[in-house]
Amino acid sequence: MFSHRSSCCNCTMTFGLFMPEHDRPVPLLWYLSGLTCTHENAMTKAGMQYWAARLGLAVVFPDTSPRGDQVADSGDYDLGQGAGFYVNATQDPWSSHFNMWDYITQELFQLLVDEFPIRSDAQGITGHSMGGHGALTIALRNPHKFRSVSAFSPIANPTRSDWGNKQFNAYLGDDHELRELHDTSLLVERLGYPGRILIDQGDEDQFLHLLRPQALRDALQRRAQPAEFNLRNGYDHSYFFVASFMGNHVCHHANILKAL
Amino acid sequence: MFSHRSSCCNCTMTFGLFMPEHDRPVPLLWYLSGLTCTHENAMTKAGMQYWAARLGLAVVFPDTSPRGDQVADSGDYDLGQGAGFYVNATQDPWSSHFNMWDYITQELFQLLVDEFPIRSDAQGITGHSMGGHGALTIALRNPHKFRSVSAFSPIANPTRSDWGNKQFNAYLGDDHELRELHDTSLLVERLGYPGRILIDQGDEDQFLHLLRPQALRDALQRRAQPAEFNLRNGYDHSYFFVASFMGNHVCHHANILKAL
Repeated sequence: MFSHRSSCCNCTMTFGLFMPEHDRPVPLLWYLSGLTCTHENAMTKAGMQYWAARLGLAVVFPDTSPRGDQVADSGDYDLGQGAGFYVNATQDPWSSHFNMWDYITQELFQLLVDEFPIRSDAQGITGHSMGGHGALTIALRNPHKFRSVSAFSPIANPTRSDWGNKQFNAYLGDDHELRELHDTSLLVERLGYPGRILIDQGDEDQFLHLLRPQALRDALQRRAQPAEFNLRNGYDHSYFFVASFMGNHVCHHANILKAL
Repeated sequence: MFSHRSSCCNCTMTFGLFMPEHDRPVPLLWYLSGLTCTHENAMTKAGMQYWAARLGLAVVFPDTSPRGDQVADSGDYDLGQGAGFYVNATQDPWSSHFNMWDYITQELFQLLVDEFPIRSDAQGITGHSMGGHGALTIALRNPHKFRSVSAFSPIANPTRSDWGNKQFNAYLGDDHELRELHDTSLLVERLGYPGRILIDQGDEDQFLHLLRPQALRDALQRRAQPAEFNLRNGYDHSYFFVASFMGNHVCHHANILKAL
């Protein structure tokens, strides 16, 4: 675990990093976590390191928002600290710290390449729930930086959900063009992605009405986007679900990244 | 997760149970946890369910001690609630509740067979640290009930360690014959086990001086006990270590239990 001063987020940020045994720089897989999580939840509960060690990938676990006494917050679990939603906030009081988009795609990306034996040209991204939203939107708009992408139960259509509109109102205001740039279902149809997208979603997920997986399935189909969308019978929204299919996801990324 | 009134422990006890998909009763693997843990730590951190689902084993995660306001405790992390040491206490104030040996080997064993589609004749046992001590001592003395056994960084020689003597003083008093019946290294040499024992131990474990793995290796050798003792380079005492080798352990048990 590492802490560093972030200029993007204007506070101290913490992340976890798993390094496999290596004798040269290795590919990196990003894991973006969901609402209420820190960098730590997935490190202990997602079962990722076993597979990353076997397949020779590094894994980074960023925090989900800026944090600290100086950082704005709300009383709600889904807005403010622990709920950065992977956007650059434009609105007060959020804009001085909540710049998770730039933090992930630029500042932390560069720091990892500079400070660790990690390849800049072989990075993939995944995540769960809000983190699945982050992984997909970031990869769709940065396909040359993030060469492989997958997600577990992503918030798939936030411009049509209370997991999305509430946060976009606060962080982004009424700039609907900007809001649409953070909606996976809209981005898939507009941009596509130059590779196969892997999604796993439990069919007994208690948040299906907020995640809106059907909107994403429809968009993938309309775009004819190469994708594997697995609706998993009997699974909910928990880390038990994530851990159950983590092996498939790490393999998906390793197959792509190690061939680069 | 289930709670039930325990007559052995004279309080309400909680356990976690993972059931794989099944159409007939399945073998059961017990996971006994270490000091300070409840039933829950291993459920979320040990990465066990993935393997158990694949291999068709049920897994039970018992708590590590009786609990509650009526139950004796100490101010120390390693004595009292969270530190039952898998013995039947004979001394005040512990003896009215701290009967984890009988709870595991009799009461919970019977409850699971009665209430769930679990085979009584195909059960194995593993655990970590204090739970590795519990798994090994219980299997060594009950080989017909626990047909397979393994452990992660077990407390291997408690009659010669501060993880052991302190607790045996409190729970068992000065009955040295009884104390020796709860020491894996002594039991291996006296009794042996009718099957191969699997042990994993990190060589950078911060508690090596308390665990005393060398005493167990020596005993296995003197007994010529079939065993695989893996000293793992660079690993510590954490759940990350446990999760790294969990696949091997669940396979070890499944190979034995599914052939019964």
